[in-house]
Amino acid sequence: MLEGKAPRGQLGPYPLERLKRVDKPTTYIGPNVQRVSEYDAGFLKAGRGEYGPRLKAEASRFVSKEPVAAAMSQMLRGLRELELVPVYSTLAPIPKDAGAQSRHVKALGYFLRADCIGICELPQYAVYAADREDRPVELDHKYAIVFLIDQGWRTFNGGLGSDWISAGQSMKSYSTSGFIATVVANYIRRLGYEAEPHFSGHYKVLMPPLVLLSGLGEMSRFGGAILNPFLGPRFKASAVTTNLPLEPDKPIDFGLRHYCKVCKKCARECPSQSISYSDEMIIYNDHETYELDVKGCTRMRVGNPAGASCGRCIKVCPWNKPYEGIHKLVEWTLERVSLSHRFSVWMDDLLGYGRQNIEDKWWYDLEEVEGIFQVPEKVGAVVKSSPLARKKEVLAVEEDDTE
Amino acid sequence: MLEGKAPRGQLGPYPLERLKRVDKPTTYIGPNVQRVSEYDAGFLKAGRGEYGPRLKAEASRFVSKEPVAAAMSQMLRGLRELELVPVYSTLAPIPKDAGAQSRHVKALGYFLRADCIGICELPQYAVYAADREDRPVELDHKYAIVFLIDQGWRTFNGGLGSDWISAGQSMKSYSTSGFIATVVANYIRRLGYEAEPHFSGHYKVLMPPLVLLSGLGEMSRFGGAILNPFLGPRFKASAVTTNLPLEPDKPIDFGLRHYCKVCKKCARECPSQSISYSDEMIIYNDHETYELDVKGCTRMRVGNPAGASCGRCIKVCPWNKPYEGIHKLVEWTLERVSLSHRFSVWMDDLLGYGRQNIEDKWWYDLEEVEGIFQVPEKVGAVVKSSPLARKKEVLAVEEDDTE
Repeated sequence: MLEGKAPRGQLGPYPLERLKRVDKPTTYIGPNVQRVSEYDAGFLKAGRGEYGPRLKAEASRFVSKEPVAAAMSQMLRGLRELELVPVYSTLAPIPKDAGAQSRHVKALGYFLRADCIGICELPQYAVYAADREDRPVELDHKYAIVFLIDQGWRTFNGGLGSDWISAGQSMKSYSTSGFIATVVANYIRRLGYEAEPHFSGHYKVLMPPLVLLSGLGEMSRFGGAILNPFLGPRFKASAVTTNLPLEPDKPIDFGLRHYCKVCKKCARECPSQSISYSDEMIIYNDHETYELDVKGCTRMRVGNPAGASCGRCIKVCPWNKPYEGIHKLVEWTLERVSLSHRFSVWMDDLLGYGRQNIEDKWWYDLEEVEGIFQVPEKVGAVVKSSPLARKKEVLAVEEDDTE
Repeated sequence: MLEGKAPRGQLGPYPLERLKRVDKPTTYIGPNVQRVSEYDAGFLKAGRGEYGPRLKAEASRFVSKEPVAAAMSQMLRGLRELELVPVYSTLAPIPKDAGAQSRHVKALGYFLRADCIGICELPQYAVYAADREDRPVELDHKYAIVFLIDQGWRTFNGGLGSDWISAGQSMKSYSTSGFIATVVANYIRRLGYEAEPHFSGHYKVLMPPLVLLSGLGEMSRFGGAILNPFLGPRFKASAVTTNLPLEPDKPIDFGLRHYCKVCKKCARECPSQSISYSDEMIIYNDHETYELDVKGCTRMRVGNPAGASCGRCIKVCPWNKPYEGIHKLVEWTLERVSLSHRFSVWMDDLLGYGRQNIEDKWWYDLEEVEGIFQVPEKVGAVVKSSPLARKKEVLAVEEDDTE
């Protein structure tokens, strides 16, 4: 089906080929970006008790307490344990042309039903300094192939973004993209080139810079997250790093820098008020990004008493639309006419986008407590007070969380 | 994306809801169908040397000799080894309504990106009598949930159906549908109901009757294979059998019985001439089906010297089209007007469908021989002599294969 939908001259289901390409990302990346450690990720800090005893306990169950997310999280664990085939000692007799190789691996990825694929050189700053257990990481592969998997428009339409399906939405795209990366890595290893898959729980690389550099998105207001013109922020990414000679894609410019500056809908709707309302990005670790209250965001996701995790910023983003019909025209216009941006945000609210459409709610709200599923008391955290209510007023996490 | 493409009133990407439903399949199934053993499958017979020494040797490499198929076959082996979560001892507090349950598991399957999903009661004759190693199989689950995954129109369009990507096309759909079945089974087991996934190399059930009974297709000319109105024969299926209370779907009638009677394009194009040209079906094991030369078909697939496996019948079938644009209208007409069938076959040939469109060929022809990939001498077996050439003239397997 996906393949069938790809018109001539287009490799996958979305028209990445017609996007405006630029030599450098639209947000600054300096020469002194330092490698970071996955060990310092908010989830892992929570699990080590750095955000208090309640979140320490929740960290091991905030995904698996809901059965859809649990089933996919179990699949992810299985994928992580699969052994890779040894790299073949003889190179396969394939063309040496890097451009042909790039089209080939993308076609393979689309054949495996990826939604968007991009390729970039792997900068060392995108390789983790240390892994989840604080063990040093080294990876000298030259290229990264990046695969995006849609979390699904309809499911987001049926939920609040901060309710019981939220973790399941993430895990669906994590596991599906992990499946694809694993197959592609094992394919390339058979051709005689080093390749490793990277996916949730099994990353040696930090994904946002790779999504950005491979031309699959621009930096968005929700700090560190990259937004795609066709899927919006509604995706998760996996990658294969490799020494197979490839031709990198260029970064894209679809006007998001200006759009995020004027929109701020995610900041307004964030239940934990962790997203910046600022007009300006900051420089953090020598690259431009919006400030994010990482601790507040992590506490919301890990500790959410009214759901499993949270993705309300994704739900309410005006770019979270199905890429079809009128939305294609809107996307085309937003790319080209920055004057349309404010109008688009205003219309998005007026037309009710970002609200829950209960007709599309297909899952059950279920929470596992001590091995037994129960119907949870609360469903979905949203900002209850005025749109301008600030962090302190609406913090959704309990007071007993140690600062 | 798939989800986004599903219009209102339709759960998945294809309009299964609007098909004509019938109480019984359009092909006869009697009361005395006997259980069969997977042990007797042609591939396994070949592997045991029942089709001669060459095919015995080929049976262990006819999939993995090509690197795309090998990578996905490796993923399938991994999926088979995953342990299922124990069935929870307490039922989850979910609605008792079987109709709601059916819509729920289908929505979950579509969320996981299945192409078509149907549900039927599990007849005992669809449970294998013995497995691949001839061990007895027992399974008393009441229902089967069936998942179809498209093998991809574009890739079929770029190939001959009997060339080096053929096994990869099967394996892509086997592994992807196996992934979905495994996640759904683990989900249902968490709800407290028995459930098991069935997929390639890991089946306790015979798929064709389940695809037929769950309203996902009708019996086609290529003996035993079920054809779907939207994907044609271009899919592989997995299933979850379960005791979760479900509401079965009814079989469908989209006119295929008459279509296959008049078309015969698969019989004409089959490289090993294993498909019947007969106007009439036979009764085999108390059900209606077209006769198939199972040995000839198996020998073609396992022993194909010009590719990995074979799916030329799928490639050339007039129902193998992308479900979009004009093809939607043609499908709609074929369903309703049997007088259009002969004209459709004639037009299909005239418009060149079934030929290779080299523009869509993205893979490399590669064959692994003793751990090293080489460019194979031959690419794709097709019927070289006149369309009416018969079996003896065109048998693509070597003469040294013992009968």
